[in-house]
Amino acid sequence: MPQISNTARIMPESAIRKLTPYADQAKADGVHVYHLNIGAPDIKSPESAVQAVKDFEFDHLPYSNSAGTFALRRALVEKYYQPIGIDITVNDILATVAGSEALTMVFQAACDPGDEVLVMEPFYCNYNTFTMMNRVEMVAVHTDIKDGFKVPPMEAFEAAITPRTKAILLCNPGNPTGTLYSKKEMLAIGELCRKHDLFLVSDEAYREFCYTGEPYFSAMQIPNLRDNIILVDSASKRYNLCGARVGCIISYNRDVLGLITKLAQARLCPPVLGQTALYGALDAPASYYEDVRKEYIARRDYTVKALNDIPGVFSPMPMGAFYTVAELPVHNAENFAKWLLTDFRLDGATTMITPAAPFYKTKGEGTNQVRIAYVLEVPALKKAIRIIREGLEIYRKLE
Amino acid sequence: MPQISNTARIMPESAIRKLTPYADQAKADGVHVYHLNIGAPDIKSPESAVQAVKDFEFDHLPYSNSAGTFALRRALVEKYYQPIGIDITVNDILATVAGSEALTMVFQAACDPGDEVLVMEPFYCNYNTFTMMNRVEMVAVHTDIKDGFKVPPMEAFEAAITPRTKAILLCNPGNPTGTLYSKKEMLAIGELCRKHDLFLVSDEAYREFCYTGEPYFSAMQIPNLRDNIILVDSASKRYNLCGARVGCIISYNRDVLGLITKLAQARLCPPVLGQTALYGALDAPASYYEDVRKEYIARRDYTVKALNDIPGVFSPMPMGAFYTVAELPVHNAENFAKWLLTDFRLDGATTMITPAAPFYKTKGEGTNQVRIAYVLEVPALKKAIRIIREGLEIYRKLE
Repeated sequence: MPQISNTARIMPESAIRKLTPYADQAKADGVHVYHLNIGAPDIKSPESAVQAVKDFEFDHLPYSNSAGTFALRRALVEKYYQPIGIDITVNDILATVAGSEALTMVFQAACDPGDEVLVMEPFYCNYNTFTMMNRVEMVAVHTDIKDGFKVPPMEAFEAAITPRTKAILLCNPGNPTGTLYSKKEMLAIGELCRKHDLFLVSDEAYREFCYTGEPYFSAMQIPNLRDNIILVDSASKRYNLCGARVGCIISYNRDVLGLITKLAQARLCPPVLGQTALYGALDAPASYYEDVRKEYIARRDYTVKALNDIPGVFSPMPMGAFYTVAELPVHNAENFAKWLLTDFRLDGATTMITPAAPFYKTKGEGTNQVRIAYVLEVPALKKAIRIIREGLEIYRKLE
Repeated sequence: MPQISNTARIMPESAIRKLTPYADQAKADGVHVYHLNIGAPDIKSPESAVQAVKDFEFDHLPYSNSAGTFALRRALVEKYYQPIGIDITVNDILATVAGSEALTMVFQAACDPGDEVLVMEPFYCNYNTFTMMNRVEMVAVHTDIKDGFKVPPMEAFEAAITPRTKAILLCNPGNPTGTLYSKKEMLAIGELCRKHDLFLVSDEAYREFCYTGEPYFSAMQIPNLRDNIILVDSASKRYNLCGARVGCIISYNRDVLGLITKLAQARLCPPVLGQTALYGALDAPASYYEDVRKEYIARRDYTVKALNDIPGVFSPMPMGAFYTVAELPVHNAENFAKWLLTDFRLDGATTMITPAAPFYKTKGEGTNQVRIAYVLEVPALKKAIRIIREGLEIYRKLE
């Protein structure tokens, strides 16, 4: 029997999905499972997105341009990026199979095997998979839950830079922490990239989910860094079109976009029906973004207060995205998360949460932390967090 | 300015798409371009595919299961694979972002950097890109246009096998040659894989396009090779749903499918609207496949005869897919293909064809060959091939 590759053998399972079999079993047993484990919200997509798919007439479905349809790229530029102050043309943007493919392509463009990418931990755990298959090393700069995961002093980055460092990767606002980086922090990181001639890869999938009231400062707005910045974006969260699988890469750097065009041509094109949905979504009124934001602020406020009200639990107040990382009064949060699914029921229900350790590169970090996605309506969040509260009370005596 | 990766720097452009700017310029000048360069047919998708998308009600678009929806996988098994004699269950199949992602994942699962994959040349040129980004070596076993690209003696494969060989990759029927492998040839290749413990990766995207009247023999039907076979499939050509971006990987090997599940989870899911289209397409009546086949037989018969009628041109008769490779009486077919786009017009039209050299691994092979996709109706093919004929007459005096 032929053997799979060594790289394949050591590939970790998705931290977000590895407990799914236990959740499936609970459901099979008739238990209701509140999913706070995955960023799959219940918010409606813009009506214009639904309508665009309904109105799409076809009798067969040909490839689009490898970079996405010209109409979509122009609409993204004119209806979305230019109005929010990201000054690009259709030549700076290439549509991808969502943020996942965008990140994979960016790592392929920027890095050779053995090259290093700096990232603040905890970070979106699938970054590991995307880099690992490309034999790129993720190097973590630690951020602390006690400080609300704020950007550490630049010295911490400097100390981690080696001759193999090719890029700094950040997610703003962040998954899993919900941390929103300020203009000042972004400028400092930009300065560092300029000094060491690094790519700055900015994953801005959660850009519209910011709760400070201040204008969002995109990596694309950092001055004098044109050739270093690579923006990764996605329709998935912004318009709740996760299943559409459409995102994009934006860069002023002709070498980067040129290479990515070659990769894009090899895989032919992004999904055409998903592109249609996103094209429609771009006609969403300003009130769509505003209503979604208000809803998440209410969910966040409830979630973070309710978590901090549980004895021994601490969660900083996230200023963006729809996640928060919470420290629990347990030794091993993965065991607790599994136990909730296998052993604990309250009124016939339980809650699924994601252990946070896999979001850290540093071994031993985050073992008592979980990521909570506040993607349900407040009444459901109430029940879900009550389950965590009462579950903890019992579990602490067992652990 | 930070530099792109070395791997990126040497990545070739898509042979199929690199002449596109010249075609675009010709169109901008008002010239009609007959596209025989790309496998993007004008055939209708099954009505049930179109209807499934029309009937799909959604107010937001969540992720599906990473392996594709259970409903789709079950329908693929029950409505498509089992009836054609491929005996699998839903646990043996994982939906992908078309054949392109399937191939990328398979190479990641099977190969480490420096490992080798045997493939008969000429082969689908994007295999280069998929393997190259994974630092896998394609090793070519030569097949000859004079023999109709038939499978060479097994000694030729044996001679190319090294300790780093991990897999034999084939495309049946083949892109670009249209060659269809017989049961006897498939069994011989299977025997070789068993002997050397190699994966057999079989790209069967063109399975329904076979013109011998004999039953198709899939790699999955090779006996006693369960753990070695990996089937790559796609909805793109079968139902003319190229833009849907849905395909699949099929394997009995738990290690392979386990690893690919991890990769699939990292990229979240295949396009949901595309899955919907494919789910509908599976209700196509038997007459759909039959009608499409008849149409392609007529197109093939016309194309191959018309090509061979041109002085100095030779094309073998392909028994599958919708491509043929033709030898032209020129020194450099790429220059000729480019010249057709830039310089030659007949009744205000020209024809785009794909130079075949990039489909060969061996340097210098195929330089006087082109790939022709007979994806237009016969009247259009008539005009397109007349352009090649008259173009050649003039070009031969210039070269």
